[in-house]
Amino acid sequence: MASTIFIQSSFPGKYLNKSLNTHFVPSFKLPVSLSFKPRTAFQNRFSVRAGLIEPDGGKLVDLHVAEPERELKKREAASLPRVKMTRIDLQWVHVLSEGWASPLTGFMRESEFLQTLHFNSLRLGDGSFVNMSVPIVLAIDDSQKERIGESNRVTLVDSDDNPVAILADIEIYKHPKEERIARTWGTTAPGLPYVEETIKNAGNWLIGGDLEVIEPIKYHDGLDRFRLSPVELRQEFERRNADAVFAFQLRNPVHNGHALLMTDTRRRLLEMGYKNPILLLHPLGGYTKADDVPLSWRMKQHEKVLEDGVLDPETTVVSIFPSPMHYAGPTEVQWHAKARINAGANFYIVGRDPAGMGHPVEKRDLYDADHGKKVLSMAPGLERLNILPFRVAAYDQTQGKMAFFESSRAQDFLFISGTKMRTLAKNKENPPDGFMCPGGWKVLVEYYDSLTPSDNGRIHEPVPA
Amino acid sequence: MASTIFIQSSFPGKYLNKSLNTHFVPSFKLPVSLSFKPRTAFQNRFSVRAGLIEPDGGKLVDLHVAEPERELKKREAASLPRVKMTRIDLQWVHVLSEGWASPLTGFMRESEFLQTLHFNSLRLGDGSFVNMSVPIVLAIDDSQKERIGESNRVTLVDSDDNPVAILADIEIYKHPKEERIARTWGTTAPGLPYVEETIKNAGNWLIGGDLEVIEPIKYHDGLDRFRLSPVELRQEFERRNADAVFAFQLRNPVHNGHALLMTDTRRRLLEMGYKNPILLLHPLGGYTKADDVPLSWRMKQHEKVLEDGVLDPETTVVSIFPSPMHYAGPTEVQWHAKARINAGANFYIVGRDPAGMGHPVEKRDLYDADHGKKVLSMAPGLERLNILPFRVAAYDQTQGKMAFFESSRAQDFLFISGTKMRTLAKNKENPPDGFMCPGGWKVLVEYYDSLTPSDNGRIHEPVPA
Repeated sequence: MASTIFIQSSFPGKYLNKSLNTHFVPSFKLPVSLSFKPRTAFQNRFSVRAGLIEPDGGKLVDLHVAEPERELKKREAASLPRVKMTRIDLQWVHVLSEGWASPLTGFMRESEFLQTLHFNSLRLGDGSFVNMSVPIVLAIDDSQKERIGESNRVTLVDSDDNPVAILADIEIYKHPKEERIARTWGTTAPGLPYVEETIKNAGNWLIGGDLEVIEPIKYHDGLDRFRLSPVELRQEFERRNADAVFAFQLRNPVHNGHALLMTDTRRRLLEMGYKNPILLLHPLGGYTKADDVPLSWRMKQHEKVLEDGVLDPETTVVSIFPSPMHYAGPTEVQWHAKARINAGANFYIVGRDPAGMGHPVEKRDLYDADHGKKVLSMAPGLERLNILPFRVAAYDQTQGKMAFFESSRAQDFLFISGTKMRTLAKNKENPPDGFMCPGGWKVLVEYYDSLTPSDNGRIHEPVPA
Repeated sequence: MASTIFIQSSFPGKYLNKSLNTHFVPSFKLPVSLSFKPRTAFQNRFSVRAGLIEPDGGKLVDLHVAEPERELKKREAASLPRVKMTRIDLQWVHVLSEGWASPLTGFMRESEFLQTLHFNSLRLGDGSFVNMSVPIVLAIDDSQKERIGESNRVTLVDSDDNPVAILADIEIYKHPKEERIARTWGTTAPGLPYVEETIKNAGNWLIGGDLEVIEPIKYHDGLDRFRLSPVELRQEFERRNADAVFAFQLRNPVHNGHALLMTDTRRRLLEMGYKNPILLLHPLGGYTKADDVPLSWRMKQHEKVLEDGVLDPETTVVSIFPSPMHYAGPTEVQWHAKARINAGANFYIVGRDPAGMGHPVEKRDLYDADHGKKVLSMAPGLERLNILPFRVAAYDQTQGKMAFFESSRAQDFLFISGTKMRTLAKNKENPPDGFMCPGGWKVLVEYYDSLTPSDNGRIHEPVPA
C-alpha cells in the first residue's frame, strides 16, 4: 500500500531529464552547500550502519485504537465530557498518533511540559534522554475544565464535533502562557504567528493524558497519500534497501541550490561507504504563517522539480511531515530533527537560520542565523543523529548555475533573498538562469497570480497581525 | 585556618540554651516542614555514602594564579587591553575562581552560553551532563570590543581599575539580550532586578574565556571570614566527619519554621542511618534586590539565631554563598543546588517558590510555587543530589509554636507572609509567639529602624524600578 504513494510512482515521467533549465538572471541567498565539519557526522561517531536508526525510546508509538475496538471506543466517546479542538490541535493529534514524537503517548502532562520548557528533553525510566523541544499541549478554558469535573477521561472532537480521540488518565494543570512563550521563542514580542494563532486566546489550563485515536487522521485535500507515517516511511526505506537516510526539512519551494546540496550530500555519503543513501524530502504540512507558500502549491512545485529531473526519484522519497510550524528557530529545529529520527533518518541537513523568521517587532532576524545548527549539534537526545550543516550556496555567474560559494572569488556570485524570489514570482519576472527549473518556477508564478490583488492593484501578501 | 571562621568558633556563647523564646502573636507562611516523598532522596537512589559527594566534572576548579607566578601575571596584566567590571561581574569572578561553577573555567563562551539557555546543562567530553542553568557571562560594549582588537587575552579590572584577573583564549560573541532574558526568566517584563542591574544597559557583546585570577577576591566588609570556598567547606565537613551534608540556601532572616525544618531534616537523616549529618546554612551573599534585607544584617540575625540555641552549632556550618541573585525561580534554583554539590552537599532542601518573586508588572507571583522543586527533581546533572522538598509549616496556635501544617485541623494554624513579617518589624511590633527567637527579631527591628524614613514619616522601602 505504501509503495503507491511515493514520488516514484506518483509522478511518473521525465525523471531522467537532468538538464538544468537555465533562462533567468540574478542570484539568491539560501541554505546550500555542505560543510563537512559537523561534530558528529564524519568524525567521532561516524559508522556505516546496518538497518535503520532506532526510534526514540526504542519503539515507535502508535496511538490508534485497534480496528476491532473502534465501535466500542466510539460509543464510549459519546458518553464522555468533550473538548473541542482547533485545526492545529488536530494536527498535533495526528503527529502524536503516528509516533513522530515517540515516546510521547499523548498531550504532555506537566512533568513533560516542564522538562520541555527547561531542558528541551525528557528523561526516560532508564535515565537516558530523548529530545523534546516544543511543548505539545492542549489548552482548555475555565468552562471546559468545569465541564470535565472529576472525569478521568475526555473525548476530543474536531471543529464539526466529530469524536477524534479519547484522552485518558488526564491531568489538568495551569497554562503559564507568558513563560511558555518566552522559553520556547526566546521573546514575548507580539506577532509571533503560532502564538497569535494558538496561545494568545487559548484557555488558562492545559490538559495532558494518553491518546486513544479512534481512526487515522485524514484531511481529504488530495494530499493524504503523501502523508506517510514513520512506520510507512521506515517500510519504504527498507524496501529500497537504504543504508543511510538523509532528511531535508523544508517549507519553501525547492530551487537548484537545494537540489545541488541534496545531490552533493548523496555523493558524499556514497564516498563514505554507504551503498544506497536515500533522501527524505520532507515538506512540512501543518500550520504555516499566512505569507508562506501553501502546502498544495508547494507540493505542485516539488512535483515539477522531480518531473524536470532535478532530483532523482529512484533515491528520493517525498512525503509530508504533518507537524504545525512554530517558527521557533533553534528550539524548533530540534523537534524537526528528532521527529525524523523516528521516521528512520540518521542524517539531518541543517541550513542557515532554520525555522527562523524576522523579529515581529524589531528590524532584525529573530534568531542568530548560526544558532540553529549549533544548538542542534549540542542537543541532548540527538547524539545518534548525524547533523549536516551546510554553507551558503549562490548563483555562480561564471558557470551560469548554482554553486557552493567561494569567498576567494566572491565577485562571481550573486545572492537573492527569499523576499526577492517572491517579488520576482509575483511580478512574473524570471529568476536567474539556473536558479530553479522552469516547471517549478511556473507553479510559483501561478500561485501568486491566484492571489486576489488588493485595491491598489498590488499583490496583497497576508502577514501575521 | 578555615576552622576559625565557622559559626562554632565565631559565635561562642549560649549555644545550649534551646528554649524557644515566645512572646508574640500572629502567624506566617513560609517554606517549612519536610515532605519525604522526593524522587531521589529516600527511594531509588538513597544510599549512605562514604566520603563527600564528588564535585561536578570530577574535580574542583581553582582558577587562582599560583603565588609564585602572581608578580609575573600582574606585569602581564598591565600590558593587556582592559575590561572594566561591575560589582556583580566581580562577584562572578569570585564564584568562578573558587569552583562553585565547576567544571567552568571562566566566563562562558558561546557554546556554553547556548547550552545553558536551551538545556540548562553542559555536556562534558565523556558524554555526561553537568547542570548549568544561569548564564555566567561578561558583557562588553562596542568600544571595549574595538580596544581588544585581535588580542587573545584581556585584563579584567575592578571599578578602581585594579587588575583582578586575566581572561585567556577569549571568544567574543553577540549578546542576545532579549533571548537571554526570555529563556532565563520566562518573561521579558520590565523590572526584573538582575536584568535592570546587569543586562538592560550592558554591552551588545559577550566575552568568554579562561580565568586566571591574580589574588583571591576579598570584600573587606568584615564578612570575608564567612566566605568559605568549596575547598574550605569540604575540609570543614571532613574535619567534622560528616557522612551527609544538607544545604539550606537562604536570603532571608531565619525564623523558627526554618529551624524546625532543618532540625527535623537532621533527625530524619539520622533515622536513615547517617551518623553525622551536617547542616550547611548558606545565605546568599552576592547582589540582592533593594528590598531584601542586606547581607550584613542577615548575618547578624543568623548569629543571634545560633546564640539563642535555635540551631545547634555543633552540627551547623554557616557560610556565605558568594553568588549574585537572579530571582529566576525554577531556572535559578538549579544553580543554587548545583553549586552546593561542588561545596560537598549531597542533600538540598527546597521550599515553596524558590528564588521566586512577584511578577514585576502583573499582580501575581512570577513562577508557579511548585515548579521550582519539580524542575529541580528532573534537572539534568543533578541526579546525584538528593532533593528534599518540604511542605508549608505554620504557627500552631494550640501549641504556641511553629509546626508542620496539618490540613485536618487547618483552623489551628496561622499564616503570615514575608510582607507581613516585614511590616511588623518596620512597625516594631512583635511577630507571633514562637515565630522567631527574640534576639533575631530584634536585629530585624534594628535594621528597619536604621532605614531613613521618607518625607511622609513612613519607612521608605526601596523597590526595583
